[in-house]
Amino acid sequence: MPSYKAPVRDTLFVINELLRLESYGNLPGFESASADIVSAVIEEGGKFAAEVVAPLNASGDAEGCKRNADGSVTTPAGFRQAFDQFREAGWGTISAPEEFGGQGMPHVLGFALKEFLSSANQSFAMYPGLTNGAIEAILAKASDDLQQIYVPKMVSGEWTGTMNLTEPQCGTDLGLIRTRAVPQMDGSYAITGTKIFISAGEHDLAENIIHLVLAKTPDSPDSSKGISLFIVPKLLVNADGKPGTRNAVSCGSIERKMGIHGNATCVMNYDGATGFMVGEENKGLAAMFIMMNAARLGVGIQGLAQAEAAYQNGVAYAAERRQGRALTGPAEPGEKADPLFVHPDVRRMLMDAKAFTEGMRALALWGGLQVELSHKAASDEERQLADDLISLLTPVIKGYGTDKGFDTAVNMQQIWGGHGYIVDNGMEQFVRDARIAMIYEGANGVQAMDLVGRKLGANMGRAVQALFALVDGECAAAKGDAQLAPIAERVEKANGELKAATMWFMQNGMSNPNNAGAGAHPYMHIMGIVALGLMWLRMATVAGEALAGGASDKAFYEAKLMTARYFAECFTPDAGALRRKIEAGSESMMALPIEAFATT
Amino acid sequence: MPSYKAPVRDTLFVINELLRLESYGNLPGFESASADIVSAVIEEGGKFAAEVVAPLNASGDAEGCKRNADGSVTTPAGFRQAFDQFREAGWGTISAPEEFGGQGMPHVLGFALKEFLSSANQSFAMYPGLTNGAIEAILAKASDDLQQIYVPKMVSGEWTGTMNLTEPQCGTDLGLIRTRAVPQMDGSYAITGTKIFISAGEHDLAENIIHLVLAKTPDSPDSSKGISLFIVPKLLVNADGKPGTRNAVSCGSIERKMGIHGNATCVMNYDGATGFMVGEENKGLAAMFIMMNAARLGVGIQGLAQAEAAYQNGVAYAAERRQGRALTGPAEPGEKADPLFVHPDVRRMLMDAKAFTEGMRALALWGGLQVELSHKAASDEERQLADDLISLLTPVIKGYGTDKGFDTAVNMQQIWGGHGYIVDNGMEQFVRDARIAMIYEGANGVQAMDLVGRKLGANMGRAVQALFALVDGECAAAKGDAQLAPIAERVEKANGELKAATMWFMQNGMSNPNNAGAGAHPYMHIMGIVALGLMWLRMATVAGEALAGGASDKAFYEAKLMTARYFAECFTPDAGALRRKIEAGSESMMALPIEAFATT
Repeated sequence: MPSYKAPVRDTLFVINELLRLESYGNLPGFESASADIVSAVIEEGGKFAAEVVAPLNASGDAEGCKRNADGSVTTPAGFRQAFDQFREAGWGTISAPEEFGGQGMPHVLGFALKEFLSSANQSFAMYPGLTNGAIEAILAKASDDLQQIYVPKMVSGEWTGTMNLTEPQCGTDLGLIRTRAVPQMDGSYAITGTKIFISAGEHDLAENIIHLVLAKTPDSPDSSKGISLFIVPKLLVNADGKPGTRNAVSCGSIERKMGIHGNATCVMNYDGATGFMVGEENKGLAAMFIMMNAARLGVGIQGLAQAEAAYQNGVAYAAERRQGRALTGPAEPGEKADPLFVHPDVRRMLMDAKAFTEGMRALALWGGLQVELSHKAASDEERQLADDLISLLTPVIKGYGTDKGFDTAVNMQQIWGGHGYIVDNGMEQFVRDARIAMIYEGANGVQAMDLVGRKLGANMGRAVQALFALVDGECAAAKGDAQLAPIAERVEKANGELKAATMWFMQNGMSNPNNAGAGAHPYMHIMGIVALGLMWLRMATVAGEALAGGASDKAFYEAKLMTARYFAECFTPDAGALRRKIEAGSESMMALPIEAFATT
Repeated sequence: MPSYKAPVRDTLFVINELLRLESYGNLPGFESASADIVSAVIEEGGKFAAEVVAPLNASGDAEGCKRNADGSVTTPAGFRQAFDQFREAGWGTISAPEEFGGQGMPHVLGFALKEFLSSANQSFAMYPGLTNGAIEAILAKASDDLQQIYVPKMVSGEWTGTMNLTEPQCGTDLGLIRTRAVPQMDGSYAITGTKIFISAGEHDLAENIIHLVLAKTPDSPDSSKGISLFIVPKLLVNADGKPGTRNAVSCGSIERKMGIHGNATCVMNYDGATGFMVGEENKGLAAMFIMMNAARLGVGIQGLAQAEAAYQNGVAYAAERRQGRALTGPAEPGEKADPLFVHPDVRRMLMDAKAFTEGMRALALWGGLQVELSHKAASDEERQLADDLISLLTPVIKGYGTDKGFDTAVNMQQIWGGHGYIVDNGMEQFVRDARIAMIYEGANGVQAMDLVGRKLGANMGRAVQALFALVDGECAAAKGDAQLAPIAERVEKANGELKAATMWFMQNGMSNPNNAGAGAHPYMHIMGIVALGLMWLRMATVAGEALAGGASDKAFYEAKLMTARYFAECFTPDAGALRRKIEAGSESMMALPIEAFATT
């Protein structure tokens, strides 16, 4: 059975020492996030994840969700009690707005808790996880009335939320959706259609489920410009705010999936269900994108989270399992064999995992700060910069974070050898659960196209120029320090590859957009390397300062410095190879007709 | 439900046009492999795999194997009938020696059939697959008597074989095994111990199962130098050659695994079972290595095979599923959306898969030819060259082949989007089944160490020098051809990276063996790129010649040329990045103590 412990020390390092959250105390919401409060939230949240939620991970995977004859869905044993505890402790309220019953604390904290919960049990974490995104969409676009009716109960965890986009014939291409919304006399709409892959679509954890549903009104354009967004509650809400009559929406079946068995992935049938339009008609996609952007960051964190959970168990096995001898001679001659930890190839996988998880945690929490600053920073310039950076990097956090998160889970399973393939040891579940994050909320190829096709060129490339300048500035500053210089030089080189690739797109993507499409995925990975490089350079800087200042926790900061060096040496070289793939263009990639791929 | 069709055309291209099998007609065994016979074997074998074995893949995964109360094991429905057909058609006899009832045809054919069977159903293919390796070990090391008793029935498929190495406390480090072999009055041994992860350890497909078991005789050295190899039949064989009394070996349980559910992975209990020593006492590891080398090539082919099966279904989905529009404007304006195939990122994954599977098929079959030539070539020099090359490249075919095979399966699942995560669509089974090949028969990190620690330095680096020369020679020759030159230049550059990395090991691996260990895995991948590059250069050369000669199947050869170009453009750049990782050395990788990896 795998174990899990929240990385409290590292998380507090990022929040307090790297991001210096306290320095934003003048901004709304941050004033309540003193170092003491932050510590308490992170520690207690970590404990809840590790002690209450993690023990249900393997059993939830084995048991799965069950659709009953009446269409109700039973979640795995223990989920309901754990969700009750979650609700009672108010874990869902941390960074929700105070006017709706939230605690109004910075998203950075919410993001950290998201990581802990997902590491502990991704299936479980998805129930509240999707609720957060639904809340954001409602707050951004719905009328005050709708907000008052739905948001407080969703914040408290009494009700949960879902997002309903996908239909059998369309996932990425939402212009193809067929679900219909017919206006009713009372201002509501009758929603009819079938949605698939609806995470947490039906379950027994909450008294009501608030579905956000994309549908087409009569005579709307037959494209993505003709989509509207609706709130469709499972139980219609009475005038007193309490759930009443059952709405005409039901779970038709539960999908059998590779992983995340503890989350109910439902086919949802809408048979003239009552829905309420969110925002303007035909502007549903824009509203849904608010939810999706939040969800994409959350999925990036899932990539980190599965990597972290797998990593902890990879470390444990490498420390305990004895097999073979160190290449440099027996490390523990009194034993019949040395621990796996002595073997360079095991260490390679562990250092890869350490460099990725710690770097990605920094990036994700930094991203959470940017989300906040984009709304709350004091000046227009700061708000714009934060918005530019997080818009640019959202597809990177999602795409790079989940690609590498999956790779990390696979490597940690590899450390376990044959025992990693055995179900009862739990390593293979990390791999199966991590796999979905590369697919949902926009497959990673879609993220890459969002980055290259949309984010890169927005505002004449303002965001990517800001990233270049940020990285170059920090590299230049760090190069004066002997310890940081070798790291800075390599990160700067990777940034140079990113610039060159960007330039190549500018010169070759207009004449043939396939050139941009062909290089989008490698480009997303270069940017991931650069973004993590920036984080590692900053972490190394902070660690160097702490050591120079005589910090008591010396080993922690020395490990940060060494891991930064490892990242620079072993992650950044890929940037050059990825650039060369981009510069190969789309010709050989796109030349062959479909017949050339047929088996004969 | 996924579908499978054997890649007959491509396989015949490799055998007839690339390897020119007919040109070896003067060598023993090859004379019977005329082009007609080869075609017939490949076509019929492909049909058998696709029509009889593939339909049992998903059902076998869902049903799994069942251990009954009496310790017997029932394989999934249909396996027994399919194995009966396999036996009756003589598919296991193709490249087995004629004096034991085989057809004595070249291993190249056996390897091709292995691919087809593994693509169709890896779990099923493992039953005869392990038998082949066991036969080789018995033929190489066992007495004539033992050979006469066991081999003919194993060749015919009446009996199957297993390999029993792993124990709970040891997998890679066989010096730690505890299974005991006590000599008996009659010259046999009483074998006692527990073996785990025994593929096909017990089943209902054959009337007898011949276990090859590693065990220690009394007073043998307490290390890998004290291991002997034994034949332990499930049923003891009577004087008339028929199976008789049940031996004291039994299946204690079946492991619950991530994949290959159709193959029974058993815990085997030996309770004083009668065994017969194979070869010399304490020389068991050498004997087992014969079996393992054959098995490692077979596992490399499994990597190819799962990639191929996943690829075929990735292609089918990309052709059928409509979603979005081509970046260059609607490809099929009459439809509401274009097929996925128009999207560059989908094409990237398809071309990656095509370049890998076709290149890997060429390498695997070329490897099969080297196995043969190492025994049968006319001159000492030719035999030595073939032996050097296949010894060097066996860990590469296993390690690179299965790493990339898994990646390919993951990418093909990715093309299916959310539908790829759904069990019933079968894409996720390819991923789960492909995963084991990176682990068993020596985890890929062990393969990398075998390559760098053992194969590279053997005979003063003779083998790797031969590879360098081979690649350089072919690149130099191809650079005169305008069409081939860009391919040759990139393959030559990758070969240059391999040479530089090799040199770096020579200069830095002696002083600190961890430097060799740290770079072993990236080195294995560079060599995989170079080996596939060599194959692609040759295939491009052959294709160019065929086109110049006015071949009728023009599209096939044009696709080969284009895919060779894609390989050169998009696979070879990684060699440079991998070299830079190697040259980073082991310092930052090995610096941190285990405490630095603990979660706090």
